[in-house]
Amino acid sequence: MIIVTSNRTSEERIQEIIAVIEKEGLQVHISRGEDRTVIGLIGSIEPKLAEHLRQMKDVENVIKISKSYKLASRDFHPENTVISIGDVKIGGGDLVIMGGPCAVESPEQIDEIAGLVKAAGGQVLRGGAFKPRTGPYSFQGIGVEGLVMMAEAGKKHGLLTITEVMTPEYVDVCAEYADILQVGTRNMQNFDLLRKLGACGKPVLLKRGFSATYDEFLNAAEYILAGGNPNVMLCERGIRTFETYTRNTLDLSAIPVLQSLSHLPVISDPSHGTGRRELVEPMTKASVAAGADGLIIEMHTDPDNSMTGDGVQSLFPDQFAALLQDLEKLAPIVGKRFDTPKVALQS
Amino acid sequence: MIIVTSNRTSEERIQEIIAVIEKEGLQVHISRGEDRTVIGLIGSIEPKLAEHLRQMKDVENVIKISKSYKLASRDFHPENTVISIGDVKIGGGDLVIMGGPCAVESPEQIDEIAGLVKAAGGQVLRGGAFKPRTGPYSFQGIGVEGLVMMAEAGKKHGLLTITEVMTPEYVDVCAEYADILQVGTRNMQNFDLLRKLGACGKPVLLKRGFSATYDEFLNAAEYILAGGNPNVMLCERGIRTFETYTRNTLDLSAIPVLQSLSHLPVISDPSHGTGRRELVEPMTKASVAAGADGLIIEMHTDPDNSMTGDGVQSLFPDQFAALLQDLEKLAPIVGKRFDTPKVALQS
Amino acid sequence: MIIVTSNRTSEERIQEIIAVIEKEGLQVHISRGEDRTVIGLIGSIEPKLAEHLRQMKDVENVIKISKSYKLASRDFHPENTVISIGDVKIGGGDLVIMGGPCAVESPEQIDEIAGLVKAAGGQVLRGGAFKPRTGPYSFQGIGVEGLVMMAEAGKKHGLLTITEVMTPEYVDVCAEYADILQVGTRNMQNFDLLRKLGACGKPVLLKRGFSATYDEFLNAAEYILAGGNPNVMLCERGIRTFETYTRNTLDLSAIPVLQSLSHLPVISDPSHGTGRRELVEPMTKASVAAGADGLIIEMHTDPDNSMTGDGVQSLFPDQFAALLQDLEKLAPIVGKRFDTPKVALQS
Amino acid sequence: MIIVTSNRTSEERIQEIIAVIEKEGLQVHISRGEDRTVIGLIGSIEPKLAEHLRQMKDVENVIKISKSYKLASRDFHPENTVISIGDVKIGGGDLVIMGGPCAVESPEQIDEIAGLVKAAGGQVLRGGAFKPRTGPYSFQGIGVEGLVMMAEAGKKHGLLTITEVMTPEYVDVCAEYADILQVGTRNMQNFDLLRKLGACGKPVLLKRGFSATYDEFLNAAEYILAGGNPNVMLCERGIRTFETYTRNTLDLSAIPVLQSLSHLPVISDPSHGTGRRELVEPMTKASVAAGADGLIIEMHTDPDNSMTGDGVQSLFPDQFAALLQDLEKLAPIVGKRFDTPKVALQS
Repeated sequence: MIIVTSNRTSEERIQEIIAVIEKEGLQVHISRGEDRTVIGLIGSIEPKLAEHLRQMKDVENVIKISKSYKLASRDFHPENTVISIGDVKIGGGDLVIMGGPCAVESPEQIDEIAGLVKAAGGQVLRGGAFKPRTGPYSFQGIGVEGLVMMAEAGKKHGLLTITEVMTPEYVDVCAEYADILQVGTRNMQNFDLLRKLGACGKPVLLKRGFSATYDEFLNAAEYILAGGNPNVMLCERGIRTFETYTRNTLDLSAIPVLQSLSHLPVISDPSHGTGRRELVEPMTKASVAAGADGLIIEMHTDPDNSMTGDGVQSLFPDQFAALLQDLEKLAPIVGKRFDTPKVALQS
Repeated sequence: MIIVTSNRTSEERIQEIIAVIEKEGLQVHISRGEDRTVIGLIGSIEPKLAEHLRQMKDVENVIKISKSYKLASRDFHPENTVISIGDVKIGGGDLVIMGGPCAVESPEQIDEIAGLVKAAGGQVLRGGAFKPRTGPYSFQGIGVEGLVMMAEAGKKHGLLTITEVMTPEYVDVCAEYADILQVGTRNMQNFDLLRKLGACGKPVLLKRGFSATYDEFLNAAEYILAGGNPNVMLCERGIRTFETYTRNTLDLSAIPVLQSLSHLPVISDPSHGTGRRELVEPMTKASVAAGADGLIIEMHTDPDNSMTGDGVQSLFPDQFAALLQDLEKLAPIVGKRFDTPKVALQS
Repeated sequence: MIIVTSNRTSEERIQEIIAVIEKEGLQVHISRGEDRTVIGLIGSIEPKLAEHLRQMKDVENVIKISKSYKLASRDFHPENTVISIGDVKIGGGDLVIMGGPCAVESPEQIDEIAGLVKAAGGQVLRGGAFKPRTGPYSFQGIGVEGLVMMAEAGKKHGLLTITEVMTPEYVDVCAEYADILQVGTRNMQNFDLLRKLGACGKPVLLKRGFSATYDEFLNAAEYILAGGNPNVMLCERGIRTFETYTRNTLDLSAIPVLQSLSHLPVISDPSHGTGRRELVEPMTKASVAAGADGLIIEMHTDPDNSMTGDGVQSLFPDQFAALLQDLEKLAPIVGKRFDTPKVALQS
Repeated sequence: MIIVTSNRTSEERIQEIIAVIEKEGLQVHISRGEDRTVIGLIGSIEPKLAEHLRQMKDVENVIKISKSYKLASRDFHPENTVISIGDVKIGGGDLVIMGGPCAVESPEQIDEIAGLVKAAGGQVLRGGAFKPRTGPYSFQGIGVEGLVMMAEAGKKHGLLTITEVMTPEYVDVCAEYADILQVGTRNMQNFDLLRKLGACGKPVLLKRGFSATYDEFLNAAEYILAGGNPNVMLCERGIRTFETYTRNTLDLSAIPVLQSLSHLPVISDPSHGTGRRELVEPMTKASVAAGADGLIIEMHTDPDNSMTGDGVQSLFPDQFAALLQDLEKLAPIVGKRFDTPKVALQS
């Protein structure tokens, strides 16, 4: 960590600042510039000391050199994390496709869609039972009942399942029915939820807050990891920018950046990332080309009538199947494995 | 609501769209342009229908004319909401000052600061017992113990108290000890928390999410109002922009905008809004000039040693007192009432 | 165009607004809602009338249905624009690679790099002779001399050339020496420059302003097109967001969006779009997968010593060559043609 | 300046980096941390060296401690710059009001408005003769003719004049007719224009680019100052954010921040900063309370019919006069002088 003092700070004050640091058993290196003095700290710095120093008079700037997260960092854990759930391995070179509707609506709906996801080559069934909605009068999901329907559809068709959990009190029931728990963008910094997920025993897909920096995103993952759960996936799902034509701006640079800063698998969500059906196909391919370990894609058999209004970003089943056919060709070119069922090719 | 169809949508498809609308008992008005047809809907539109229409093929755009929130809207409730707590009225022409430390640290600390807030002319004591922190290794607040300390300090010095509640399970205990419950920026869309606050019986100060639009902000307030709690204050606390010199960009236009869209009182937080002590004074004055109904300001007797690291944005007690003296002169010029204790002037 | 009146506008005022519209020979369609009246305009609307209406009292909102640009719009020109320069065709299914240094530094430098671009399979040599710099004390480019050096290097190695023009007075000399003129992000709305380029007779690559919406971007292209120059390429080069880890956020959704709104070719610039060498390779591949018609990539033989400081985002020659080998495999999967020289494969 | 090396950079490489620095006659201070080594540079660092170092292999980060601008910096010039034009002093404690229409439309229009600006207490007449417009089909201003009309109106009513100059070739003619030249937001980094203004002999009001950081803004000012023109005003006019309800987000923190980083006067533009007439009054007052040295405000006698469409953000003359009456009371409270004509009070 580096401390920059204000223009023309007195030598006396500089010595006071140094005394604070040395009292904590740390060494300092002093660089006296023409206007400002720079104090470098050597050793492991407690967050509390960093905060104290930042607040001291005549401290113009405190610059962190080391990262604030540890367990999520590739410095700390150089090898890729590979999350194994049943036969599916996430983060180890396989491209993992999670597909399904925005919301679970009925047993028939989720069963039919599960069959289509499986036939197209997907490995995970997505579907929301609890839905976060901007306004209180919108459809909020069908709740626990939806979890049961999805679990049955997943089991029947040989798919893992992923669903969003919105509040600490529902972690247990979601963990009972789903294979992967998803944290939505609005909850990325719902710290009680993150702590609870740290102890839930199931893999977690953590979506990036729509205005979260990479650093904040990895710190949020750190909450889950620090709770004892090593199986965290990072999901880029679009950030908020000045551009309103797309629902969000899908930040594909996040994929290689997060893979370099962290060892955790990175998943891309082109459905929420764009909010427009016609952009899902090119952005899915771009995500794979950028190195994504997996995709989470909305697909609906009747998007005109989806209950959440997110049908506008859902693929039709034939589009979903055609896209996965294309990914089968694209994946090996960027060093990933992905196969669609041969029977699907024959039909 | 208005529906714009895609370029050269067939007449047949337009009739299908109209049929969907008329089936819900609504009237339509059709405007056929050279390229696009525009369908206007008359009547009260269910969110579900709006969502359905947005997803239909050949619907290029759906434009809301009415607002998605009702109880929070000034259209619906033309008079200002005035929240009365004890002798303090918020939203009725008095300028309300909430001051105190970022976090409650000890009985002595909060007692001393409460005395200073009162002496300077503040009406409400702020202080965090539960602290939302970006990383899991930072100080997280001292918990329920802090609530008790703050309640005692408030009672002793004749101040109301406000504290942040971060999770639904702590709403009851916070409501037991504090006069106003605060929702932090990261929790603006923690919908379970908002629902719980709708039934808590205490006034709520809702902070704007750091990337929330006015519309999303008012929809979040709507969750609390729809739960039966009419006493909601809106708090502008800075938004995230590309500028990193300040911690956030304090959006003062939000004050008159929110006051025009809504009847709820609007509070400004120049401490978090700027993240820099030297900006708190000018931005407080600017907030009052822009019409704020109140301010929430961090003040600390020993900011160099605050436990959260937010000392960097806390005023010293003498700065806080001097600022309130200035506000006494400024407030009447913009039609607000604010008086500092006369004894303070004599000392 | 649609006009929404304020809550409870009087019938008299509505009639006044309608009179203004009908005076211009346009038809109106009126939809009376419970609170607001909506007036639809049919016919071709002059910008001046639109501006007048937007300013009228009791007009709460004016919503454009048609786009403000015409020549740039795919509605107006459904076929792709294909720009032919010598043997190179841009926008017609070939993937076009533009490579070279940030700045032309010497005849030897540009000659060596040109040879490497050609050998790797690039078709266009990029290089700046005039450099836009944030501060006045940074290296500003070597000027006209650099244009001459680049033109010679391009001719010798059989490459087209592209260079940035920063001011109207240099359009002629740049057009004399270069095959394609580039408008930088800071000049996207330098309207005098755009007008001059409309009459310059050479193809133009227009970079998106770093905070320009798609609509503003296409309106800037419209300035050039309206000046009589149909050969405009749109270049996505990263937008400014809250994330500072990358220099900009490369918005790859812009590629399919611009291709759907417009018929003009779309080029991606992963070098400026990320500002980090290690991200250029994945973002180049992602750009191709998203459908880009071409790429503009910085490459330098000695990036440690580039004169502009942009070496940090320049590929080394071997990275550039390896990347183009990969693109040869990737391009056909997304329906594009791209071949590297066979001799390069043998060496 | 501080250089942070990558994780586990070899000692040999560190010595190579140090050698590059010492070759330039600079001293280094080395701090060896557990993972990374930090190299501090003492002495005056050429931009070229900084750029070179940033590009070197194993340099993870280069952190500037000194600012990149000099002449604009308060470190370099501790006293406030006061710009004197005739009797008007800008930056010296007087509040300066610039008012007038978006565009000069006719001699009668500008004469009438000038009379109203003067009567209300304004010191400077604003008006555009050349207008920057997003699309090529919008009204572009009436040109030199407008300059003449405005100069005459200014002279007749005893007002200084300010007008926007959009391109280097018009600097001379604008400087001939106007007292202050304005650079618009889209031209903040039109470096040729800035250089030309550095030699124009007239004071310049430089508007912040709508996505410019404070650092970029002050570097743009540095171009003009470095050209020999010390009379530069900085104008905050709103930045681009995710919020679209307002045309821009007026960043009032910019006022105290720029005044602390620089000695140049700071002007606020609440008209463009909000884009909504009803927000101009509160944001003007907030600007004054935040410490602005002046305001530039749009006022029009017939905003419904303004030629640019900016009438929507123009005050009516009576609103303008009433606002200036209020400022007369507000200014002294924040230590500024401002008087409206006594005759105006009597009428």
